[in-house]
Amino acid sequence: MNPYYAPLADMKFLLEGVFDAPQTWAKLPQLAESVDMDTAVAIMDEADKIARDLIHPINRSGDEQGVRHQGDKVITPDGYKAVYDQYAQGGWVGLCGEPDFGGMGMPKMLGVLVDEMAYSACNAFTLYGSLTAGAALCINAHGSDALKAAYLPQLYSGEWAGAMDMTEPQAGSDLRNIRTKAVPQDDGSYLISGSKIFITGGDHDLTDNVIHLVLAKLPDSNGISLFLVPKIKVNDDGELGETNGVSVGSIEHKMGLKGSATCVMNFDNAQGYLIGKPNRGLVCMFTMMNYERLAIGIQGLGTSQAAYQMAAEYAKERTQGVAAGGSPTGAISDPILVHGDVRRMLLNIRCYTEAGRAMSVYTGQQLDLAKYGEGEVKAKAARYVGLMTPVAKAFLSDRGLDAAVMAQQVFGGHGYIRETGIEQLVRDTRIAQIYEGTNGIQAIDFLGRKTTGDNVTALTEFVTEHQATLTAMKHIGDEHKNAVASRFEALLTVAHQINDNKLTQPALINASAVDFLDAFGHLMYGYYWLLMADKAADHQNKQFSQTKQQLADFYMAKLLPKVDYHLAQVSSGDATVMAMDESLF
Amino acid sequence: MNPYYAPLADMKFLLEGVFDAPQTWAKLPQLAESVDMDTAVAIMDEADKIARDLIHPINRSGDEQGVRHQGDKVITPDGYKAVYDQYAQGGWVGLCGEPDFGGMGMPKMLGVLVDEMAYSACNAFTLYGSLTAGAALCINAHGSDALKAAYLPQLYSGEWAGAMDMTEPQAGSDLRNIRTKAVPQDDGSYLISGSKIFITGGDHDLTDNVIHLVLAKLPDSNGISLFLVPKIKVNDDGELGETNGVSVGSIEHKMGLKGSATCVMNFDNAQGYLIGKPNRGLVCMFTMMNYERLAIGIQGLGTSQAAYQMAAEYAKERTQGVAAGGSPTGAISDPILVHGDVRRMLLNIRCYTEAGRAMSVYTGQQLDLAKYGEGEVKAKAARYVGLMTPVAKAFLSDRGLDAAVMAQQVFGGHGYIRETGIEQLVRDTRIAQIYEGTNGIQAIDFLGRKTTGDNVTALTEFVTEHQATLTAMKHIGDEHKNAVASRFEALLTVAHQINDNKLTQPALINASAVDFLDAFGHLMYGYYWLLMADKAADHQNKQFSQTKQQLADFYMAKLLPKVDYHLAQVSSGDATVMAMDESLF
Repeated sequence: MNPYYAPLADMKFLLEGVFDAPQTWAKLPQLAESVDMDTAVAIMDEADKIARDLIHPINRSGDEQGVRHQGDKVITPDGYKAVYDQYAQGGWVGLCGEPDFGGMGMPKMLGVLVDEMAYSACNAFTLYGSLTAGAALCINAHGSDALKAAYLPQLYSGEWAGAMDMTEPQAGSDLRNIRTKAVPQDDGSYLISGSKIFITGGDHDLTDNVIHLVLAKLPDSNGISLFLVPKIKVNDDGELGETNGVSVGSIEHKMGLKGSATCVMNFDNAQGYLIGKPNRGLVCMFTMMNYERLAIGIQGLGTSQAAYQMAAEYAKERTQGVAAGGSPTGAISDPILVHGDVRRMLLNIRCYTEAGRAMSVYTGQQLDLAKYGEGEVKAKAARYVGLMTPVAKAFLSDRGLDAAVMAQQVFGGHGYIRETGIEQLVRDTRIAQIYEGTNGIQAIDFLGRKTTGDNVTALTEFVTEHQATLTAMKHIGDEHKNAVASRFEALLTVAHQINDNKLTQPALINASAVDFLDAFGHLMYGYYWLLMADKAADHQNKQFSQTKQQLADFYMAKLLPKVDYHLAQVSSGDATVMAMDESLF
Repeated sequence: MNPYYAPLADMKFLLEGVFDAPQTWAKLPQLAESVDMDTAVAIMDEADKIARDLIHPINRSGDEQGVRHQGDKVITPDGYKAVYDQYAQGGWVGLCGEPDFGGMGMPKMLGVLVDEMAYSACNAFTLYGSLTAGAALCINAHGSDALKAAYLPQLYSGEWAGAMDMTEPQAGSDLRNIRTKAVPQDDGSYLISGSKIFITGGDHDLTDNVIHLVLAKLPDSNGISLFLVPKIKVNDDGELGETNGVSVGSIEHKMGLKGSATCVMNFDNAQGYLIGKPNRGLVCMFTMMNYERLAIGIQGLGTSQAAYQMAAEYAKERTQGVAAGGSPTGAISDPILVHGDVRRMLLNIRCYTEAGRAMSVYTGQQLDLAKYGEGEVKAKAARYVGLMTPVAKAFLSDRGLDAAVMAQQVFGGHGYIRETGIEQLVRDTRIAQIYEGTNGIQAIDFLGRKTTGDNVTALTEFVTEHQATLTAMKHIGDEHKNAVASRFEALLTVAHQINDNKLTQPALINASAVDFLDAFGHLMYGYYWLLMADKAADHQNKQFSQTKQQLADFYMAKLLPKVDYHLAQVSSGDATVMAMDESLF
């Protein structure tokens, strides 16, 4: 398996050249203290090495060996523990964590790029740290000072890990029906009892403790509350104490992600602590879920980048056939990259991946503004985070599968063989479209809550701002500008159609949501390509400028038109979707 | 895992109601003798039982256990041998084989439906019989009378199996570079030496002998010839004799299809017999390959049907959330089939699957006319087989992956768990897009050889005939007719654009081929939906009529418009595909 190299030049260009990170950070006092572009570059350079030399080498072997459940222990594949120790000691788990509790306080805008590198190197391994960082984020946002002090330092340091315990057999997409119970105790804690399924990193041997964030119901309440439940109790002095009635029922045997422990967790009068207010657990959990949703989008993005590198490398090396019109070198067989269809596949993956990275960095930027900004800057960024989170999760993960499948196709028959490694990417990334809320759920969130929930107000604001930026681009021709601008208009028109009919056609949003999200995603990628081409025009490296222009041209010619198809789908309504009687399916 | 039920009503409707099989067969003397609709129905009913009760039960266990390579033996999963014996004894391997040598002489139009059932039940198992039938077809078409007499009866009876040995490490899509050698002997046989990779069913324990059809080069020749090479030599009396220098180097560890042995085969002075003329091996092999290409399309189709059944069943049983606008039954949770997005996914799979079956039966019909017809009927059918084979292979197998992935999405998190069974379909069917010529190769064949190779003559004839049938439909409104008719015109226009520019833009065909095939596939499916709705209008079961109409309406509203996107892609040319320098990939 080829080594992984992070696309550092592209990453730095996005941060500095496209989204002007230094200026963003300089304006936010907390970030201005902790980060500048030199620091960011040093961190990215180091993350690239960590991804390549530390994480990537355990990717294939972890897939073959998988996680094992022996007795009451969950054992990760060989090498995971040693790599995790080094990763944690490097401070990577707490990269964006609160400095007061030992986090590095780095901006999410940078964090998304580090996350991408780690996911490119190994999907399964990276989840452990990602869940831990998400749990810490939630505790930091909603936990009491005592909980923060007791748990955050060990989570940021990677000494302990985090997990998110929501799903039960009868309650997946619909959490109303969870049955896990929380009984209040005299000392202010709660005893938690119930079973949870599909718990990523629910238990493992990487850390001494696993801190569960568990959704449960208080007695005589249908509301859902959130509890912190450690696997091992933590004494007042911070040392680990007794076990806590938290056990693993079994682990799942999955299509992929075999190095990631997916556990059935049993809670038997386990001591837990309320996070946030009673019956407001979903609100708290959403802090973590929004973080994880972006992270899962980035799982897809990291997979896309890894798939692209592998396929491009193979296409340059593998010879088969000659170029149409004759071999450029007079060879008997040319590298398959000469073939239009192979180039088409690679350009497809590349264009989606680079635009996806722009979406990821942009969303990270909005998260930073929403966290560290003030007043209207903060409020507007929060609205944009609301819009972008479901899109980034779904669109990036959908493109992740497409990229892996298309890269596998470049390999021909060799792509179906396990040791080639590309089929693992297909299996590993497939789950990203499902967990953390299926991509259908994301789309319904985007169209139902985020777009029509406020009668298209936030989306209109967002589009207006982007149209203004588009108009102001200096190096982009009118044809390209109009192609994006007119589709922004069309998107708003369709959004209003849905909004106008949502009450009289109750199934409309559900039936139209995925196409609406796909239209928006393809349109935003077109916008990002023009933005990148515009900003790259001034780049000191002329070849860099030209490449971005050529990729933008490919995207505009070949992929942007998908917007029209998806908008037409939405416009065609829900009648044909809802007509057939259920018994006839 | 739910049992499999063949969609017998739909299958019979296609044969009798849509494509008028009885009349087709009555006009072809050889078929008129051996088959009528009653016979066909009896065969389908029996095949349904075989698929459900015999083949399907070894599907999941075979995936978990896989094929093993022990010593010099290849051992199939538990149960495969017993099932294969019964399957062969039932005459299923020789279903469409030559009656003179023990085949059942059934039409391909029926055979495609039986194949579909078997692939729905188990992709991996079904390949063994499919390869055998394909090898027999090739021997029957091009072999000497002596070879036919010596090998066909045991192939049709399933006593021996067949394999197709083409690929070598340096020669995959491009077979010019094969190195396997054939040295002529005084007795008229040849000694074959070389190594072949990716040989499906190259060796196994299901049969006493494996008959290899091997591509090799004669001394001092760059031409490619085809040889029959038995694993065990066959004595003059028909009994098995000595071993023949044919051995297994290793078996591949693959993403899926784990019950199917994919072998590295070594030939060491193995005795072989020329099939067809020297240096004309590819022509002979294409008889087998065209047969296999349709079969591989049907692998995708069978997967689609299996995926649909599983997902529809789950969507009716799994409750989660309530219907938009309130539960129809007042329940706390409704079956997820109430949700528009779930219906959208199921209808998508269903519409592609039923139209795909129509394409499969139509292609089978053309194969029958090309084989059993005479004069211009035969010649025209051969032209249509040429057009349809690459399309059926690629479009059906692409839709197979889409269907499996979408069905997996319906299952949510459970879809990622191995024991649910749906993820196996994703892994098993993925290879169908790659082997027997990648789908990119199919598309280049369709656009390059079949469409522009004769300056769009055959495609024009084909479209003209279909336009006439469309115009004559009695129960289809003008809007639907025009939607298909105008796109047939657009397709021809784009085909001529490519044809006009093919000499000046050498990369154009290669870069445009996949989109052109996708446009044609989506268009043909629209045509088939109107044809089915039209024919179903007179069906005695009014609910059957209505369902077909509703499915046709969904297809026309939601999926036919993809034609426009793909044609626009083709029209946008190859400039953006070929612009970027190779070093920048």
